[in-house]
Amino acid sequence: MSKVTNEIYELVRELFPICRSITGDGVRQTLKIIQKHIPLNLFEVPTGTKVFDWTVPQEWNIKDAYVIDPAGKKVIDFKKHNLHIVGYSIPVNKTIALPELQKHLYSLPDQPTAIPYVTSYYQPRWGFCLKHQDREKLKPGKYRVVVDSELKKGSLTFGELIIPGLSQKEVFLSTYVCHPSMANNELSGPAVTTFLAKWLLTKKRRYAYRIIFIPETIGSIMYLSKNLNVMKNAVVAGFNISCVGDERNYSYVSSRNGETYANKVAQFAFESLGEDFTRYSYLDRGSDERQYNSPGVDLPVVSISRSKYGTYPEYHTSLDDLNLVTPRGLYGSYELLKHILELIEKNYYYQNTCLGEPQLGRRGLYPTVSKKGSAAGARRIIDFLAYADGTNDLIDISRKIKIPIHELYPIVKRLLKEKLITAQE
Amino acid sequence: MSKVTNEIYELVRELFPICRSITGDGVRQTLKIIQKHIPLNLFEVPTGTKVFDWTVPQEWNIKDAYVIDPAGKKVIDFKKHNLHIVGYSIPVNKTIALPELQKHLYSLPDQPTAIPYVTSYYQPRWGFCLKHQDREKLKPGKYRVVVDSELKKGSLTFGELIIPGLSQKEVFLSTYVCHPSMANNELSGPAVTTFLAKWLLTKKRRYAYRIIFIPETIGSIMYLSKNLNVMKNAVVAGFNISCVGDERNYSYVSSRNGETYANKVAQFAFESLGEDFTRYSYLDRGSDERQYNSPGVDLPVVSISRSKYGTYPEYHTSLDDLNLVTPRGLYGSYELLKHILELIEKNYYYQNTCLGEPQLGRRGLYPTVSKKGSAAGARRIIDFLAYADGTNDLIDISRKIKIPIHELYPIVKRLLKEKLITAQE
Amino acid sequence: MSKVTNEIYELVRELFPICRSITGDGVRQTLKIIQKHIPLNLFEVPTGTKVFDWTVPQEWNIKDAYVIDPAGKKVIDFKKHNLHIVGYSIPVNKTIALPELQKHLYSLPDQPTAIPYVTSYYQPRWGFCLKHQDREKLKPGKYRVVVDSELKKGSLTFGELIIPGLSQKEVFLSTYVCHPSMANNELSGPAVTTFLAKWLLTKKRRYAYRIIFIPETIGSIMYLSKNLNVMKNAVVAGFNISCVGDERNYSYVSSRNGETYANKVAQFAFESLGEDFTRYSYLDRGSDERQYNSPGVDLPVVSISRSKYGTYPEYHTSLDDLNLVTPRGLYGSYELLKHILELIEKNYYYQNTCLGEPQLGRRGLYPTVSKKGSAAGARRIIDFLAYADGTNDLIDISRKIKIPIHELYPIVKRLLKEKLITAQE
Repeated sequence: MSKVTNEIYELVRELFPICRSITGDGVRQTLKIIQKHIPLNLFEVPTGTKVFDWTVPQEWNIKDAYVIDPAGKKVIDFKKHNLHIVGYSIPVNKTIALPELQKHLYSLPDQPTAIPYVTSYYQPRWGFCLKHQDREKLKPGKYRVVVDSELKKGSLTFGELIIPGLSQKEVFLSTYVCHPSMANNELSGPAVTTFLAKWLLTKKRRYAYRIIFIPETIGSIMYLSKNLNVMKNAVVAGFNISCVGDERNYSYVSSRNGETYANKVAQFAFESLGEDFTRYSYLDRGSDERQYNSPGVDLPVVSISRSKYGTYPEYHTSLDDLNLVTPRGLYGSYELLKHILELIEKNYYYQNTCLGEPQLGRRGLYPTVSKKGSAAGARRIIDFLAYADGTNDLIDISRKIKIPIHELYPIVKRLLKEKLITAQE
Repeated sequence: MSKVTNEIYELVRELFPICRSITGDGVRQTLKIIQKHIPLNLFEVPTGTKVFDWTVPQEWNIKDAYVIDPAGKKVIDFKKHNLHIVGYSIPVNKTIALPELQKHLYSLPDQPTAIPYVTSYYQPRWGFCLKHQDREKLKPGKYRVVVDSELKKGSLTFGELIIPGLSQKEVFLSTYVCHPSMANNELSGPAVTTFLAKWLLTKKRRYAYRIIFIPETIGSIMYLSKNLNVMKNAVVAGFNISCVGDERNYSYVSSRNGETYANKVAQFAFESLGEDFTRYSYLDRGSDERQYNSPGVDLPVVSISRSKYGTYPEYHTSLDDLNLVTPRGLYGSYELLKHILELIEKNYYYQNTCLGEPQLGRRGLYPTVSKKGSAAGARRIIDFLAYADGTNDLIDISRKIKIPIHELYPIVKRLLKEKLITAQE
Repeated sequence: MSKVTNEIYELVRELFPICRSITGDGVRQTLKIIQKHIPLNLFEVPTGTKVFDWTVPQEWNIKDAYVIDPAGKKVIDFKKHNLHIVGYSIPVNKTIALPELQKHLYSLPDQPTAIPYVTSYYQPRWGFCLKHQDREKLKPGKYRVVVDSELKKGSLTFGELIIPGLSQKEVFLSTYVCHPSMANNELSGPAVTTFLAKWLLTKKRRYAYRIIFIPETIGSIMYLSKNLNVMKNAVVAGFNISCVGDERNYSYVSSRNGETYANKVAQFAFESLGEDFTRYSYLDRGSDERQYNSPGVDLPVVSISRSKYGTYPEYHTSLDDLNLVTPRGLYGSYELLKHILELIEKNYYYQNTCLGEPQLGRRGLYPTVSKKGSAAGARRIIDFLAYADGTNDLIDISRKIKIPIHELYPIVKRLLKEKLITAQE
């Protein structure tokens, strides 16, 4: 672990209190904080813009929301936790009886100490979320209900950072910033992605990197509607980064086409880490990889997580907090993603420049005395060259000759220097 | 079970007594009875006609045949069971000693109560078949032997029904009518096929149906020699229907090329029934699928059976009678084949009309409140759409998203109505 | 076993005492003895010739070499065993102390009774090999060291025999003649190959045979540098023949591309022998198959062995002698290789000439009486014809219809005679 370990966690902490949604000032505030780390460009897409089958909705902002019980006590208070309000709740200010109020309340009987996360983006509605144990204490009587929110023509905000590379080809990173105060899903994704971008900016890059911070679903659909043609030609592999902050095992959701380059790299990277991981089928998808892999879009995108959305008990509740997410958890994911991106940067097709084996001895790469077993040390070089036929990339060669890829990196370097191989896209 | 249950069985009963062979009046009489149910066209192919490597043989008819023992008793009598005569026996009328008679007798020592079924279509010969237990009672002495048969230039008779569909593409059904009094092999095939045709005539049809009632081997070779070019272009899947009348498990014989559409549909249909079934290799073939799959013919044809020819003890003996075949057994096969044909009719390639997921919420197909688990009900629609990319047919989608095909039919209907998918051939 | 059994062994015995290396008179003497059996053409490639990435080295010859101990005793003597001298040792004639001598000695602590085989072709050096048990007896003092060798501009010698066939296509056999007195690796290869060539000369041949006797590595690289273009077009399958003289199990090293015709034939041949054998991955390669399969060369070559080089304890030591190799071991390999070559000669693609099944009955190939089970005898003919569709060769058909290939040879002969099939390249 290093200095960056705490920096990622600090960013999560800084962003945590903000009330985000798919539009509104919470998103803008979040992206501006990220701009302190990386030169993100912000864009505003007006309400009413047609994006494929969808329409950008009205912008939603909220100042306050609460419920006062018959005894005059504020029993639900948005200012204490922004999950108390159903996302996109319309304004309301009235006094109603408990039975009427109940129709607008959401709680989890199985998780009585958790405030659930509920939204209603595309149907006008208001509602409050609360711990089930608190809901059970509500007594009959008149309740004062106030939602001081605003729905108006405005815009959907997103951030984009395109980092150029030597090639026009791109690696695509996508993460989302539409969730209110939850830490793993979803501040871990934007925080780790921010520091990945920061690291990429310091590197010599083969590929360009297209990195976006968007609201989920409507954001990815909007982004594709503007950029699909360019991305279809450019993107070699993409990663939806989500739920990467806890300390549980890693996982990835396969792309719809199981043979994409993103899948190949992810599978190989996880295997080469030597830790347990879960490969989810595309049937287990649930985040923006849904859009990126949809028919006709067909971008080579997988989702990278630790505990995947929907699979851990704290998911979409107030229990997904700053205790669930840890500096160590965030940093591990950051390192994993660096490992994946380095793999992509270094993964060329290699072509032997000789017919027959080259004479390694005169280059100091083969023992000059030949005796039983003497060539064992040179074996990996010979094996590498045997498969460097222009049809195998470094991942393929590593698999075929059964040598870990990081042990091949110095061999590649030496053989390139000796002009015994060439690297090809 | 329904009214048709008894009707199929009654047709088997009506056809049972007739003495059929590969040519002759028994076939004509059989096809005329079938014409009472469906508008079958009858054709006559003259003796001597060259059909691929074969020649249509002389026509055979028989009036009577018997053997009288030294005591004057009729010990073998064609009029009691038409299996007593070797098919295509030449006329004979003479008195011979028992040892000479024995050379012309056929019985089954292992099945002493069964009269075997024996033929000699392409070599002039006469012979009688009898129960082994009766053969053992024959005493030395002179036997009078009479075969009142006729072999002459005539023709081979077959029936054909072509039912048009919206498409020029065809589904092919083949069954055979050359066996004398045996019920499973082979009256079950023609009887079930007759009622399938009757049902098809009442349906709106995507495909045309080419349905033939032929003598085995020579009939299919003859039919191919006349229709192969048309069929090569038109037939999408074919089914040889044979031995479908008992109550044992279903089975099918794979086509030679294991990747034909007929194979795909049959395998899927059997799997989706959820009953045990046997998939026989093409090496286990034995009926007209031999010809339909032969090199250069290569039609996509599988054979559908319950207990396949050759695998059950009553096969090709007098024990294959009206007790072995049951109304329930016949009706089950009729329903299975309807299931297969409906599958073919409904199995289109589907293409999503949107880029990205469509907004299902505004069409009432997705919950408007989003909370933990709320989208589970809409999941199958989303999964269907995710694979409706124009490269998967409904069978593929059902397999990939692991939802039974009958549960997809209403989803398809709704999505077509919403214009969210199109159906493609 | 036959007369040839002893002849192969006798050839090994005759060649055993000669001191071979990658160049020099030992190779010439060896090839001249082989010329007594087959009309081998000998070629000389001058020192300094560029061959791909390599250069033909100086020619090495040796008259004598020995070490005399402080007591005046000849403790190491090349004339007693030619493995005592490191191959390509430069001349030396001096007296040195034991510690200095030790730097030039090679022995095997784990195999104290074996003289190891050591060479230093491409780095000027001198050295002696001895049993470890003898090395341990050496006492301090002055040792007289004499190597009476010569390194000079000369040439690399190899033998080639091209036996024409009906086709321009070739089968390639390669074996090496650069090892001094060791029997399995490597006199078994040249001896068995000599007698294979002798046998081929007596046969009517579909294919041409390109057979070479070369020094390992530099020889195959040199040969490819001169013949690759011709061989790329002509060679259908090649076999590197090495270590075929002991009585242990057979093995082969797969070609780099696991789908070559050489692989298919070798795998099938070994399976059809019904004995245990080992299929080594290309990663286990180690002889000239390294060069033949290298990227850009890509000839369809496998290596055939009994105990493969490197896998048996006597390998590359004086224990690899005339006891390890036996007449029976050599003869078995000779028969195996004949089996493989016969398979290649007989393995055509077959094409049914009829549409539908042919009428086998009128050709005496099918019973004229049809009764339960009567066609079983003709079944293999029908099955053969069913897969003789022009896309399956005889190996494929044998696998698909599960009939041993030697049982198909008479069926093929008969069907060719009946013009029911044609054979195609």
